[in-house]
Amino acid sequence: MFLFFGIFAIPMRILIGSEGKRIYFNETTKNDLQTYAGVIKQKDIIKAKPGSKIKSHIGKEFIVLDADFVDKIKSIRRGPQIITLKDSGIISSYTGIGPGSKVLEAGSGSGMLTCYLANLVRPNGKVLSYEIREDFYKLTKENLEKLELDKFVELKNSDVSKSKEKNLDVAILDLPEPWNVLYSVMKTLKPGGRMVFYLPTTNQVIKLLESFGEEFTDIKIIEVIERRWQDKAGALRPGNDEMGHTGFIIFSRIV
Amino acid sequence: MFLFFGIFAIPMRILIGSEGKRIYFNETTKNDLQTYAGVIKQKDIIKAKPGSKIKSHIGKEFIVLDADFVDKIKSIRRGPQIITLKDSGIISSYTGIGPGSKVLEAGSGSGMLTCYLANLVRPNGKVLSYEIREDFYKLTKENLEKLELDKFVELKNSDVSKSKEKNLDVAILDLPEPWNVLYSVMKTLKPGGRMVFYLPTTNQVIKLLESFGEEFTDIKIIEVIERRWQDKAGALRPGNDEMGHTGFIIFSRIV
Amino acid sequence: MFLFFGIFAIPMRILIGSEGKRIYFNETTKNDLQTYAGVIKQKDIIKAKPGSKIKSHIGKEFIVLDADFVDKIKSIRRGPQIITLKDSGIISSYTGIGPGSKVLEAGSGSGMLTCYLANLVRPNGKVLSYEIREDFYKLTKENLEKLELDKFVELKNSDVSKSKEKNLDVAILDLPEPWNVLYSVMKTLKPGGRMVFYLPTTNQVIKLLESFGEEFTDIKIIEVIERRWQDKAGALRPGNDEMGHTGFIIFSRIV
Amino acid sequence: MFLFFGIFAIPMRILIGSEGKRIYFNETTKNDLQTYAGVIKQKDIIKAKPGSKIKSHIGKEFIVLDADFVDKIKSIRRGPQIITLKDSGIISSYTGIGPGSKVLEAGSGSGMLTCYLANLVRPNGKVLSYEIREDFYKLTKENLEKLELDKFVELKNSDVSKSKEKNLDVAILDLPEPWNVLYSVMKTLKPGGRMVFYLPTTNQVIKLLESFGEEFTDIKIIEVIERRWQDKAGALRPGNDEMGHTGFIIFSRIV
Repeated sequence: MFLFFGIFAIPMRILIGSEGKRIYFNETTKNDLQTYAGVIKQKDIIKAKPGSKIKSHIGKEFIVLDADFVDKIKSIRRGPQIITLKDSGIISSYTGIGPGSKVLEAGSGSGMLTCYLANLVRPNGKVLSYEIREDFYKLTKENLEKLELDKFVELKNSDVSKSKEKNLDVAILDLPEPWNVLYSVMKTLKPGGRMVFYLPTTNQVIKLLESFGEEFTDIKIIEVIERRWQDKAGALRPGNDEMGHTGFIIFSRIV
Repeated sequence: MFLFFGIFAIPMRILIGSEGKRIYFNETTKNDLQTYAGVIKQKDIIKAKPGSKIKSHIGKEFIVLDADFVDKIKSIRRGPQIITLKDSGIISSYTGIGPGSKVLEAGSGSGMLTCYLANLVRPNGKVLSYEIREDFYKLTKENLEKLELDKFVELKNSDVSKSKEKNLDVAILDLPEPWNVLYSVMKTLKPGGRMVFYLPTTNQVIKLLESFGEEFTDIKIIEVIERRWQDKAGALRPGNDEMGHTGFIIFSRIV
Repeated sequence: MFLFFGIFAIPMRILIGSEGKRIYFNETTKNDLQTYAGVIKQKDIIKAKPGSKIKSHIGKEFIVLDADFVDKIKSIRRGPQIITLKDSGIISSYTGIGPGSKVLEAGSGSGMLTCYLANLVRPNGKVLSYEIREDFYKLTKENLEKLELDKFVELKNSDVSKSKEKNLDVAILDLPEPWNVLYSVMKTLKPGGRMVFYLPTTNQVIKLLESFGEEFTDIKIIEVIERRWQDKAGALRPGNDEMGHTGFIIFSRIV
Repeated sequence: MFLFFGIFAIPMRILIGSEGKRIYFNETTKNDLQTYAGVIKQKDIIKAKPGSKIKSHIGKEFIVLDADFVDKIKSIRRGPQIITLKDSGIISSYTGIGPGSKVLEAGSGSGMLTCYLANLVRPNGKVLSYEIREDFYKLTKENLEKLELDKFVELKNSDVSKSKEKNLDVAILDLPEPWNVLYSVMKTLKPGGRMVFYLPTTNQVIKLLESFGEEFTDIKIIEVIERRWQDKAGALRPGNDEMGHTGFIIFSRIV
């Protein structure tokens, strides 16, 4: 449901019509905007202020807004399966990630979680992100730069088992076979540091549990199911098109 | 499952045994620690370093850790029903709350969400928190001070409809009848700002939806269900004692 | 995923290929069968025995089976929203419907639940089914006849509030406004008889609960959520395309 | 929440107060009834008619009812973990079990599912039930006799792999290691017959899927989650004490 117009620089802006669909643009655009409901002239775009209304050539009204962080992170280019904001929110709240946190992540994939974490640890924290595939590494890099979050991330195109950091707060592994790097990642954490795993299948969860030594305590395995409801006051009911499974999240604490 | 020993000052520390239960203490304690598995001598406590091991008089081994943010927030004193970390995580990730955000909250209740938000908006953001009941106001104040987060919060013992702030990013209403304050709170938000509601019953959700004017767009009603699994590699299965319902979360955006 | 070939008489047969898709036919067909994977000759169809294999002209293999009750009920023609086998199974097991039961139902809709109940109460029980809309009444009649279950059902094209039966075991109301007929239906039940309601929205559930007098006891409100898993031994995980909400089922007992 | 008074013969009766709790008794009782709310005199019990009211010595009012099938099956004595009415209802509706069906079951456990199936296949169907443990075999036998359903069941204290039946409609395996008997049970089914498995853990589901040969088609793995709601018209919301996991149900069809 996102419509894009070229590569854009900051400040990122959006138009929203009554349907809630976002149309991204920025002040420096050289072209008219082709929306799903008519054309908006370039000269109208560049002088629009946040909160003001603007009309397409067929009279459809849009509101102009400065993109907030949610708008921005939803604008990133996606490659592999991402960790959604639903799962990202739970991962950060259950591990206490916030300003100043030092967090390791592997692999970065499209960089959705990387961007999410980078925004949270600002200004004095750090995200150390590992991605072994070059194409994903480049995609994450592009997305971090677009959101101006690259300075909070040390992004490496290498295997996480080569990490030499120490005293980190949290490590998050979104890897198909995390059991291969358990002990090298463990060494990067402070005492009591938290290691989190994101795994789609029960076979992987079983293998991970079998790999845990006694250093892994406070183990908690969850699925987070978002149940969406239809927003009709006169017919309030759960929706028909629930999102199914995303992944199992496994929390542990190293002692 | 938390055992406390008196009012404590920072640095907060914890002991964890193999069962994962936290025992809170601090270095300045004057007394021996009575744990669920024997006594630990005061002289041992005060010289223990994070990551070191310490034994009770019956030989039970504990690990000493610096309390992290999750340990700290779980130590707060609770009065009324709280918004859990599960729901807090989704609220913050779906609204983009992070360092620098300006967030209004009402009512504060026990202050669990207040503490959670205050930690996230540091160092240059702000939480504006309203609580009409004096006992809850005092409880929130006490908890914020204990977690050293009070300087990021403007806490008021008054009705949220009296708020005069402008240009806030997000407002979160955990009130039984939020429809009474919809328009006074709406005025505190920037264009495109987000208003979030936490409501336990469908009757409340219905009444809220009926109260929305056309300024309320991008409406999303969800329940977040955490399904916990048993952590046995040889018998991986969902647990028996799932937590039921907490509340409906309603997201909206003001245009 | 069902392919039909004309109106068919009993015995109903099916072909199943390795994909599990059903192709319905019967021995008296006069035509070749056009399947999703080639043509099967009429002369092959009429001599096929249950359990035997049969090939299409492009060599695709199918198994010939006698249709069982599940095949048959899935072959009915559908008009309005049906009560699924998931919800039908719970309704019958929670009310003890079985051979000999006397059950009232309104409205019949497509007749899916009518067929399901008629099959269960055989040979000496009875389903009394009311449907006010003539088109649905005719559809239910057609479906009952096709499944040869019409002799176990007294189907009426009238309002359920006109029912004069006495001493029934269970009444099931799949009506948008069941509160209008509560007391007329109540009189048809034996002491301790069970009244069941199927309602899609919470607004309806609220109105129903408000309408209950003290004769309505043992009230139980449930949703039945079927969570489907993917059948891959090497990657066992919940599916992505979960069915969302069907309806709330409200059980009560009249004393 | 069930209170029992001695071994009882048919006709089984119940008393229900406003709380919905059942108190079982029968007309031939020789003693006064000690309820949770006072004593009811034997002379009052024996002359009470279904639907009549009766008072305890402290004035608490109860309604007298003939036990229906649900009351009866909830009165059985329980040993091992049972298959609940929730899962029993789905198993029967998804396999089309009804009057006349021929069903194999192993192991019988407490006999809850055995009783449920026996009631459904009456009067001309049959349940063939295998239970290897003698104590469970005896418990199932006792429960079937109490519910007068024993004549519809062939109950054997032996291993299901010894079954020699042919042409059955459905086989239901509630065994910890069903893969050991897959092919001996398969031979008892008619072409297109349905085999159902009830398994608590994902490890078992994985092993079962690995054991399936190509005769097993139309495989469907589900969990059935009953979500119970609180029955307050003014505060309609999901309950707090949801039942967690019962078991995975795996359906297949033999071709």
